[in-house]
Amino acid sequence: MTTSCFGKALEAVHAKKPLVHCITNHVTVNDCANALLAAGGSPIMADDIGEVEAITAICGALVINIGTLNERTVRSMVAAGRKANALGHPVVLDPVGVGASPFRNEAVARLLREVRFSVIRGNMSEMKALAGAGSGTRGVDADAGDAVDEASLPKAVRFAQALAVELDTVIAITGAIDIVADARTVWAIRNGHPLMAKVTGTGCMLSAVLGAYAAANRQDLAAATAAAVCLMGQAGETAQARMVAADAGTGSFRMYLIDAISRMTAERLETGSKAACLQREPVPACGRE
Amino acid sequence: MTTSCFGKALEAVHAKKPLVHCITNHVTVNDCANALLAAGGSPIMADDIGEVEAITAICGALVINIGTLNERTVRSMVAAGRKANALGHPVVLDPVGVGASPFRNEAVARLLREVRFSVIRGNMSEMKALAGAGSGTRGVDADAGDAVDEASLPKAVRFAQALAVELDTVIAITGAIDIVADARTVWAIRNGHPLMAKVTGTGCMLSAVLGAYAAANRQDLAAATAAAVCLMGQAGETAQARMVAADAGTGSFRMYLIDAISRMTAERLETGSKAACLQREPVPACGRE
Amino acid sequence: MTTSCFGKALEAVHAKKPLVHCITNHVTVNDCANALLAAGGSPIMADDIGEVEAITAICGALVINIGTLNERTVRSMVAAGRKANALGHPVVLDPVGVGASPFRNEAVARLLREVRFSVIRGNMSEMKALAGAGSGTRGVDADAGDAVDEASLPKAVRFAQALAVELDTVIAITGAIDIVADARTVWAIRNGHPLMAKVTGTGCMLSAVLGAYAAANRQDLAAATAAAVCLMGQAGETAQARMVAADAGTGSFRMYLIDAISRMTAERLETGSKAACLQREPVPACGRE
Repeated sequence: MTTSCFGKALEAVHAKKPLVHCITNHVTVNDCANALLAAGGSPIMADDIGEVEAITAICGALVINIGTLNERTVRSMVAAGRKANALGHPVVLDPVGVGASPFRNEAVARLLREVRFSVIRGNMSEMKALAGAGSGTRGVDADAGDAVDEASLPKAVRFAQALAVELDTVIAITGAIDIVADARTVWAIRNGHPLMAKVTGTGCMLSAVLGAYAAANRQDLAAATAAAVCLMGQAGETAQARMVAADAGTGSFRMYLIDAISRMTAERLETGSKAACLQREPVPACGRE
Repeated sequence: MTTSCFGKALEAVHAKKPLVHCITNHVTVNDCANALLAAGGSPIMADDIGEVEAITAICGALVINIGTLNERTVRSMVAAGRKANALGHPVVLDPVGVGASPFRNEAVARLLREVRFSVIRGNMSEMKALAGAGSGTRGVDADAGDAVDEASLPKAVRFAQALAVELDTVIAITGAIDIVADARTVWAIRNGHPLMAKVTGTGCMLSAVLGAYAAANRQDLAAATAAAVCLMGQAGETAQARMVAADAGTGSFRMYLIDAISRMTAERLETGSKAACLQREPVPACGRE
Repeated sequence: MTTSCFGKALEAVHAKKPLVHCITNHVTVNDCANALLAAGGSPIMADDIGEVEAITAICGALVINIGTLNERTVRSMVAAGRKANALGHPVVLDPVGVGASPFRNEAVARLLREVRFSVIRGNMSEMKALAGAGSGTRGVDADAGDAVDEASLPKAVRFAQALAVELDTVIAITGAIDIVADARTVWAIRNGHPLMAKVTGTGCMLSAVLGAYAAANRQDLAAATAAAVCLMGQAGETAQARMVAADAGTGSFRMYLIDAISRMTAERLETGSKAACLQREPVPACGRE
């Protein structure tokens, strides 16, 4: 498997223009909608319990982001997720800030109990909290001790794959090195730039874009996820390369990032890819429980 | 009637700086506020049932946008709308995504029953759904089959004017060709650029700006609506003309759009206008019911 | 006291990267998060009553902004504020639009009754409404008659300091001339640019940044507040200086503003400061009640 599958994944999104239902947070919702449009999808945001099932039914995928969850929206997330499951639509979970409060932990536990997720994306701290591994989540950013570097990569890969097996999903852990894993495949992706952490919502935008990639590439969700992760990383690199103006700061970087998503082509995605596919044997559920 | 009335409409907004109460969606609310400020108005967003009547009372117009409606906010929309009606303030409706769910359809039906609207703006799919014409709304974008082009314009104009007569309002249908109609007048406006559909909220921003134009030009709401539609279309053209940088994408386009709104003058609006006023006789309510 | 304390305040924020809990409005929440990140802090937005106490507990400060308050979030604001008080965390209040509705006035009165605020920031109309001085707030902008200029500065300073004494807090009144006062000290800050009023949320962004400055500089909240106010004013000046492109408008200005926040250094902050510290004797509570 080479990254030529990434180009095909992008082309499928551009061809199918999937409509993606997002139940997401109000901090980054506009960026999520614009990132989805830039990536070639079409967003619809709706979170009232009275319509989430009907909205999900007309879409190709559902993205659930708990960034500013509340009692009302958690109920809507569960209802929409169950409907999407019943219809066989891919469902993406972004467990923003899980670990930061018992309320968030319980909401995620309930979502994992009641909804089957196709892809779960978060930083390492969130993924550890989601796995019940007892990480001390510091808000919505990853703990310094949870950074994935070359030294910690093998351990992080084992964690990601075990979690993927346990939850029967694709796990995407984003950070300095991104990891995408399901039961049979692992990708390590070295695209991206640290400036992405200085703009709110780069993770949320990626999760929204993942909805479009999953909807358009249901035959290989792991590769589609890796393609979207690689796309976002490259967009960060392209944005950084434009930071040459004497006064450019994080406001400019945010705009350049959306620009780069909207200008990505299959050829660029493959040429710029720093993704490596690490084949693995299927592994049993780890002994974490 | 020439488009010199557009320049006067803009000057009235700049002179009066109308305060506009928006009950709108959380996806594009920031862009709506900035578009209103850029156009010369002043936004206030408030949606709690405990204050919407008091807030509307100090404003010059009310804009209701159902993009992320919920049970709580629908009640607030009705209460604010009735108060605005009682005070004689113009009320604008943006029925985002109507047709996408029964919940949205019922909310719009209730709003049309309980509130008298001065202007209703949407894409053709939304307008057909609003009219009960049974269009299959695909999320928040217009169906391809609903696109208004030169061939379908006459039919679209008849539809718009019949709907305007039936609902006793100004109807604005935006798309490749925009139509503005009330019982006596029809405008066809050929400004705009397809890139506007690649940024979320260009319709919402227009609806917010319509609030300011209606508040400042109550003596001729159809012309004021046409002026604001023309302004937004020209802003899209100006934004597109700036997309010359090698790396400019939809993020830049969004910023250029707000820039262009903020720099619009009466002279530019008239010089750049591609609006044509198609005079018509009053028509009876169509036989759609 | 010179403005060298401003540079130290900035350096403390950069060194400590304080996590700031914001319960804020959905109009400007994204800009608040990005302004906080640009200033060197880290934002977390959470407003469900089920988690606001837990979230506040892991943060260094709490910022309460009532821009789009509702019954649900007012309860969360009170609960979070009381928890932050119990933990000794600084709490910032931005009483957006107080005076515009009885609902808003009652919410602010309740917040002042139940929560002890470290810093309260608003425009003069909001501050008068908050003080019960009966100003007619015109939405979220200051009344023209409330503008602080050189002539009205002495009176405004007396008002600010009396309010600071009465509420035992730091008062920041922003406008053409900004005033920061507590019982012992008054700053007048002449940085800023009128274009800041043409972008929504410059006040909200400042209030969010104040959370980071208060968290990192608890030993001198008045100086920390003045430093952040000066930083935002200078960011406005820097943004304005970049408005040289033929087509730059308020969209560009907004981006330049975040850019400037993210590029501010201790040296620039001190060099560009137009802040004057007006020492005052402690004053008794004024006779307004």
